[in-house]
Amino acid sequence: MMERFEVNILGCGSALPTSRHALSSQVVNLRDKLFMIDCGEGTQLQFRFLKLKFQRLNRIFISHLHGDHCFGLFGLISSLGLLGRTADLHVHAQADAEKIFRPVLDYFCKELTYKVFFHAFNPTKNELIFEDRTLKVSTIPLKHRVPCAGFLFEEKPKSPHIIREMIDFYQVPVSRIAGIKAGADFVTLEGELVANRVFTRPAEPPRKYAYCLDTAYYEKIIPIIEGVDLLYHEATFSHEDIVRAKETYHSSARQAALIAQAAHVKKLVIAHFSARVTDENILLNEAREIFPDTILADEGIVLKV
Amino acid sequence: MMERFEVNILGCGSALPTSRHALSSQVVNLRDKLFMIDCGEGTQLQFRFLKLKFQRLNRIFISHLHGDHCFGLFGLISSLGLLGRTADLHVHAQADAEKIFRPVLDYFCKELTYKVFFHAFNPTKNELIFEDRTLKVSTIPLKHRVPCAGFLFEEKPKSPHIIREMIDFYQVPVSRIAGIKAGADFVTLEGELVANRVFTRPAEPPRKYAYCLDTAYYEKIIPIIEGVDLLYHEATFSHEDIVRAKETYHSSARQAALIAQAAHVKKLVIAHFSARVTDENILLNEAREIFPDTILADEGIVLKV
Repeated sequence: MMERFEVNILGCGSALPTSRHALSSQVVNLRDKLFMIDCGEGTQLQFRFLKLKFQRLNRIFISHLHGDHCFGLFGLISSLGLLGRTADLHVHAQADAEKIFRPVLDYFCKELTYKVFFHAFNPTKNELIFEDRTLKVSTIPLKHRVPCAGFLFEEKPKSPHIIREMIDFYQVPVSRIAGIKAGADFVTLEGELVANRVFTRPAEPPRKYAYCLDTAYYEKIIPIIEGVDLLYHEATFSHEDIVRAKETYHSSARQAALIAQAAHVKKLVIAHFSARVTDENILLNEAREIFPDTILADEGIVLKV
Repeated sequence: MMERFEVNILGCGSALPTSRHALSSQVVNLRDKLFMIDCGEGTQLQFRFLKLKFQRLNRIFISHLHGDHCFGLFGLISSLGLLGRTADLHVHAQADAEKIFRPVLDYFCKELTYKVFFHAFNPTKNELIFEDRTLKVSTIPLKHRVPCAGFLFEEKPKSPHIIREMIDFYQVPVSRIAGIKAGADFVTLEGELVANRVFTRPAEPPRKYAYCLDTAYYEKIIPIIEGVDLLYHEATFSHEDIVRAKETYHSSARQAALIAQAAHVKKLVIAHFSARVTDENILLNEAREIFPDTILADEGIVLKV
């Protein structure tokens, strides 16, 4: 069975919250560790509505310092304190974030029961900003009015699967299994060399998820997101509004699809809908003309990577 | 007909937002001018859901600097800018507010199309902090973990009503009517003095509304809120939890009712329910035992003052 790797959509509207869409935020769940991307106003409530577990959330990534992507941090951090959190919380954002947020947190959250660490990244570079045993997160430089980064979530390559029957057949001692997982061959008591491939099946290829908003159409991201399993790309406007999209450094649905197609991604989710868009199916159809495997983001949906 | 004077409840929960209640905020509507009191996270959305008009909102009063009462300011101020507001916005709060909020607004709202002014008040004094032609707003010092003020909204005394038939009967020229409204008698062409009371009926007595949260039971507010038409008082806990109420400087429903009774208010609304309270009718019944004319606050209700 594949380990859980999914994306929970908390909010997929653009700068103005509406009755249809909450502000930008989502939670990537990799093997029940939760990673938040962006945290617009109201995120803590959406988190609660989706019945996600606050204690599994340890790391937040902020794409850029526009209010609709980060004003929810104040309330979220504050409420985690009221809930008695003790585990550290890590916020990855541009360098200004700590300068701006820390004084507010120091003022309002004097009695915080846990520590908040800010980790600065450079949004103009494609670089690794976090890794643990199973995951790598790197930045995807985007093209917006202010410096803005997307995020690429990549599973690390997994150990091959052990074929239990062959282990039994060759009476491999337990102490040798870790070595075989790591690629070693096996020599039987009779001195026979048995190749590693006899005991193993290759693991599933590592899965990749890319988050790209807010951004104008920007071909430079294509090599970075090449072949990802799931691309979450903004489509603030329909292509009819391409002039406005360009002015505001946003993308049309058609442009999101062109990026998905050029990068050979497996699936595209479009999001960050302008409050002016009354029928999102227009965006969906526009994208599907170019990239058929497209869906619309919506609050509460869970996307498998 | 009485001019509109009503209170729209945007949020009446306590510090942790729940699926039942939003964070503290309400809008006092006096003759279609809107005055916001407190602005917890999510307030801009609640404002929108209640179909209130952003352009009629010019003044915000913040009771105290706890996040659940003011973190919504960032998003609200930001969105008003996106909506193209040009009118000044005035925020009345404790002196620290400007120090804390201004750098965030300067950073995130560089292109704001209107000005935000902070007006500092002293929460330890009962003093007038705003007045216009029809309204006076003064602070009500409360007893909380941090300095906290309630607000008393008082209509100014209104001019008496003119009795049209008597004006016609004595052939009072139009130029004299303002004087009669202001209390002058009238002398006819024949030299007859006609007393002012012949031409006027007294206006309705000015209405008063008092907002008191967050606060422990605090008898010193009683003379300030004496006889108000509507008292909005917190009742975070039931009296069973009086120990916790005291520890956290909050009130029980019973205590809210005792204050209402002692101050001879006309009507009590209880609010700021703890997330632990699963059945608010317990609070309601507890309060009604002492002060029968009590109701529960709830999001979306409109209270006539």
